[in-house]
Amino acid sequence: MKEVTVGIDIGGTNTKMGLVDRDGSVLLQGNIKTTAFSEFRDFFDGMASTLRGLLKDLPADHQLMGIGVGAANGNYYTGNIEHATNLRWKGILPLAKMFREEFHVPCILTNDANAAAVGEMVYGNAKTMKNFVVITLGTGLGSGFVCGGVLLNGHHGIAGEVGHTSVNPTGRYCNCGKRGCLETYVSATGIKRTVYKLLADHLEPSELRGISFDNLNTKMITEAAHRGDIVAKEAFEYTGRILGMKLAETVVHTDPEAIFLFGGLSLAGDLIFKPTIRHMEANLMPLFRGKIKILSSALQNQAAPILGASSLVWDYFEKQKMEIA
Amino acid sequence: MKEVTVGIDIGGTNTKMGLVDRDGSVLLQGNIKTTAFSEFRDFFDGMASTLRGLLKDLPADHQLMGIGVGAANGNYYTGNIEHATNLRWKGILPLAKMFREEFHVPCILTNDANAAAVGEMVYGNAKTMKNFVVITLGTGLGSGFVCGGVLLNGHHGIAGEVGHTSVNPTGRYCNCGKRGCLETYVSATGIKRTVYKLLADHLEPSELRGISFDNLNTKMITEAAHRGDIVAKEAFEYTGRILGMKLAETVVHTDPEAIFLFGGLSLAGDLIFKPTIRHMEANLMPLFRGKIKILSSALQNQAAPILGASSLVWDYFEKQKMEIA
Repeated sequence: MKEVTVGIDIGGTNTKMGLVDRDGSVLLQGNIKTTAFSEFRDFFDGMASTLRGLLKDLPADHQLMGIGVGAANGNYYTGNIEHATNLRWKGILPLAKMFREEFHVPCILTNDANAAAVGEMVYGNAKTMKNFVVITLGTGLGSGFVCGGVLLNGHHGIAGEVGHTSVNPTGRYCNCGKRGCLETYVSATGIKRTVYKLLADHLEPSELRGISFDNLNTKMITEAAHRGDIVAKEAFEYTGRILGMKLAETVVHTDPEAIFLFGGLSLAGDLIFKPTIRHMEANLMPLFRGKIKILSSALQNQAAPILGASSLVWDYFEKQKMEIA
Repeated sequence: MKEVTVGIDIGGTNTKMGLVDRDGSVLLQGNIKTTAFSEFRDFFDGMASTLRGLLKDLPADHQLMGIGVGAANGNYYTGNIEHATNLRWKGILPLAKMFREEFHVPCILTNDANAAAVGEMVYGNAKTMKNFVVITLGTGLGSGFVCGGVLLNGHHGIAGEVGHTSVNPTGRYCNCGKRGCLETYVSATGIKRTVYKLLADHLEPSELRGISFDNLNTKMITEAAHRGDIVAKEAFEYTGRILGMKLAETVVHTDPEAIFLFGGLSLAGDLIFKPTIRHMEANLMPLFRGKIKILSSALQNQAAPILGASSLVWDYFEKQKMEIA
């Protein structure tokens, strides 16, 4: 039998799933709208029915090994989604238990950035690494730590919330209830806020003055910067400065071999990598300078969240083997 | 045979060593002056001869299992002391290799804060914990992380330098070459600098106005605060505020069950614990609030650095057992 895992990425708007083989090829894919269900049970039934549809199309010689799920506020230890701010269902949602009862295979849940970190280790650029960090730059800023070859989960299952370290205690309002968190500056939303701040503070002409906050996105800012737009270029410099400064603090905590940047903002290439590296080095304790690589994730495509989630299952079986051996 | 380990604590001024049994009792102790030797080889010979002296007094039914050494800039992977700023011998000092050649037992070296963390796990208040942090408050601020029951060493063997995260990039000068590092505010030296800043800024009478910088120490500041001295009390409040703010950032990295405070400054009790806890909670991402314990180390005595260093050997054999099993 060929072995396959299911990877499910639950986002605030869309939920994507796929059947993935051991090499990281996505054999079949499906998706449903997260926002279309007012009850969590109905949302679960929607996922289960989509998954059964995919499994019907899977050749009979393929065995389903398990289900991996990445979701904001997904807790690895409990298998619950806990108090997610980006979903309409509040409280504790016992997702892993529901999947196990329905499909009778292991179900491993973690937050989306942890899933990305395991994905990088299983399929990506961190295959040979034991100590690294993945920073996901999406609507917010997520982070996943691998230390000594093991995903860092922490005592309560919620390690890796670097997006909520402080840049400025009296700074921008954050969804978490605090002010000045890193993700309010460094994320797809953060750079939009920075563009609007720069447009407010300065007089320079900019093509971005014609775009509303709701319509503005990272791709537009990137393209404007490539065309030489001063405000767009300055927005990347500002974002990279703050990211570099804060990564210098993350580095002295866990001493990683590399930090991978993942997601929309990281696709801007040198525009974001150059200031990030420069300011990280300038702010690093000298002992660490020149030692830490800032790299692009190998999973920079649409299927990445599915791959990351599916990799949780392979990682689970690896751990089982280690415990038995 | 009863098993004993050697614990050696190499400080900038004194080097202490002891023979320690499995329960953490120090059977015999000795020490030499670190500063008395201009050549590193002579310092090593001094340590070796002191150790041979202790071993002579050890009953014949005790077996020497190994030597654990805690030293600033001690690298767990290489067994070298690397570019220590607090020692007179520069460059790379291959200490673990020298001890192994001389005594033919395993020698495990790590930095002093990591040794304290393993000590807390082996003999102290963290015996039942898998995820915790130890903050050592001495001349500087050291930190050791245990994640998933394993000491976090990082890729280069230099994880846990939280003392060199940034409080203020244009703040106090630090020995590491940067400015505004946490340890310039939160340490025995840091609180002295704070007292002097407060004496400079304010007009309040204070018994500390009569003491020179060189003569001032944490004990004097603590006693003055207990007597109601406004400047001394404010110095603790200021120190705890900064420590609490920065611990809130450490927490969201690794999600520990507890953070242990160790060393002179932590002996001030409520004076330092109360503002630290208050400001950590106020600055924490809400998801973590009320979940993280701030505790006092169980190894608060003169022998603690020896215990911490000696525990490295027991930890080494535990790991060996896990790899063989």
